[in-house]
Amino acid sequence: MKTALIALGGNALLLPDQKGSIEEQYKNMRVTCDILAEMIKEGYELVLTHGNGPQVGNMLMQNELASQVVPPMPLDICVAQSQGQIGYIFQQVLSNKLKMEGINRSICSLITQVLVDKDDPAFKDPTKYIGPYYLPSEANRLKEEKGWDIKEAENGKFRRVVPSPEPKSILESKIIRELVFSGEEGHIIIAAGGGGVPVVEEEEGYVGVEGVIDKYLASAVLAVDIEEEFFVMLTRVDKVCLNFGSSDERELDSMTVDQAKQYLEEGQFPPGSMGPKIKASIHFLENGGKRVLITSSEKLSAALDGKDGTYIYKD
Amino acid sequence: MKTALIALGGNALLLPDQKGSIEEQYKNMRVTCDILAEMIKEGYELVLTHGNGPQVGNMLMQNELASQVVPPMPLDICVAQSQGQIGYIFQQVLSNKLKMEGINRSICSLITQVLVDKDDPAFKDPTKYIGPYYLPSEANRLKEEKGWDIKEAENGKFRRVVPSPEPKSILESKIIRELVFSGEEGHIIIAAGGGGVPVVEEEEGYVGVEGVIDKYLASAVLAVDIEEEFFVMLTRVDKVCLNFGSSDERELDSMTVDQAKQYLEEGQFPPGSMGPKIKASIHFLENGGKRVLITSSEKLSAALDGKDGTYIYKD
Repeated sequence: MKTALIALGGNALLLPDQKGSIEEQYKNMRVTCDILAEMIKEGYELVLTHGNGPQVGNMLMQNELASQVVPPMPLDICVAQSQGQIGYIFQQVLSNKLKMEGINRSICSLITQVLVDKDDPAFKDPTKYIGPYYLPSEANRLKEEKGWDIKEAENGKFRRVVPSPEPKSILESKIIRELVFSGEEGHIIIAAGGGGVPVVEEEEGYVGVEGVIDKYLASAVLAVDIEEEFFVMLTRVDKVCLNFGSSDERELDSMTVDQAKQYLEEGQFPPGSMGPKIKASIHFLENGGKRVLITSSEKLSAALDGKDGTYIYKD
Repeated sequence: MKTALIALGGNALLLPDQKGSIEEQYKNMRVTCDILAEMIKEGYELVLTHGNGPQVGNMLMQNELASQVVPPMPLDICVAQSQGQIGYIFQQVLSNKLKMEGINRSICSLITQVLVDKDDPAFKDPTKYIGPYYLPSEANRLKEEKGWDIKEAENGKFRRVVPSPEPKSILESKIIRELVFSGEEGHIIIAAGGGGVPVVEEEEGYVGVEGVIDKYLASAVLAVDIEEEFFVMLTRVDKVCLNFGSSDERELDSMTVDQAKQYLEEGQFPPGSMGPKIKASIHFLENGGKRVLITSSEKLSAALDGKDGTYIYKD
């Protein structure tokens, strides 16, 4: 049985210059699902994860603009809402595509919670910008009224920052594993959308927290939890590069996890770009994973044949 | 194996006098989950469905108030968002309660689409009020701009109306059935929230439509699709009554599906109240179901022992 967990990049859902209309979201999703359908046709069982940045950004904006009339929802609720929204579009578009190809498979999205440590140092040092920009006066009011952490994001423009704690485990992993790996033909499962809803363990049980979990790291933890061996990350570049963007840029066909760690240490993979994907790869490969593939959705098919993309192996 | 599909009434999530803050939603959910935990302790495997009226109402309001800045989402997307939101709260609170009771069960919410017939007469006669109230001038503008159907809901106050088509089948029923009935101890599944997201079948596949499916009817169709034999509806009254609210009101301990049809025909069960629950019962019992129980959450435990509530049987 060929299986993989595929983490989709932000581009799979919304391009940087799009505002987020529903037509745009469906259009991008169709392109993504055409590519995934190819993989399913080749016999892969898939778990799919996705981002939610633009969608949650829009929800936070709506929450704020309507706050005089409708009680605003905290961030964990907005993440859950976005899992509902994107999961719905995703399962609908992918299942339509498969049906058109004569493939009959069940697809479903699961609302996913991700356990984080309540003593994670990230809670003391929130770094992830979310939601709208504010003028200094608004920023001060919101700090006082809501107790938010707000930082200057651009010159004179302020934004809320929330913690980005490390994912420890996926609460729904048992169900996800069962759905994908049981039966003759497993189901296709969409999970851990937007990095999952972060929860901490308190005396009364799991409690949602306002934070954003890195979606690649959450995907790696999910892959480990369900004992998946192949982890694919789709991104904007066809291959991972050394000296990215410089004159001596060099594309990598493959590397070992030790090489990946060394390059990361050398600063080859910046935090806002390739860094999180490499960190996720290392976590996965050091916890039971066998192979990582990083490539663009355009090159996925060739990369699966070993002709493109960057593979990372345990050794 | 004792199993049941339980459809929660609106009260399970928000009371009529509440605005919908997150604290209120969690508080009500805890009460509901305490009751469900009792049933799970007694060995029941459960599929749980729920409403979403107030939550979707709030989302529509947010969409509208922010529409100059954020592209508004259509109703099917809002329903999917509400499944994410309520499913998240539900699975978290119920799993916390079960853990506290020493019960280890997996719980998960599935984004659920419900197939409706695109020729359903409801599409030509929208009757279900949704979203905010409008003044006549706004109502006229929205009719023109968006092509909405808008009707006078109260004297001088207008509201959008959407169709309420009949549910035909649940697209995710195969997965739901497998999760609940497979293995030694099935999982607890939350599905078909808010009556499910209505979709119609077009040449290109399933396409979402703006409409609201009756949540009791959707629950009955889900119960039939997964071959569940016991269907429970929790509502405000302890028992179904004849001549409800009049001096010769009479509580029913049980009835047959034929009696239910006759009473319905006689106008005993009004459309906005007991009617949909009785219609759902009839659909369920005429399509393979064995037993229906209608009662309040306070009386559920006694009703399961046969000491309260109203049972409806095939014959």
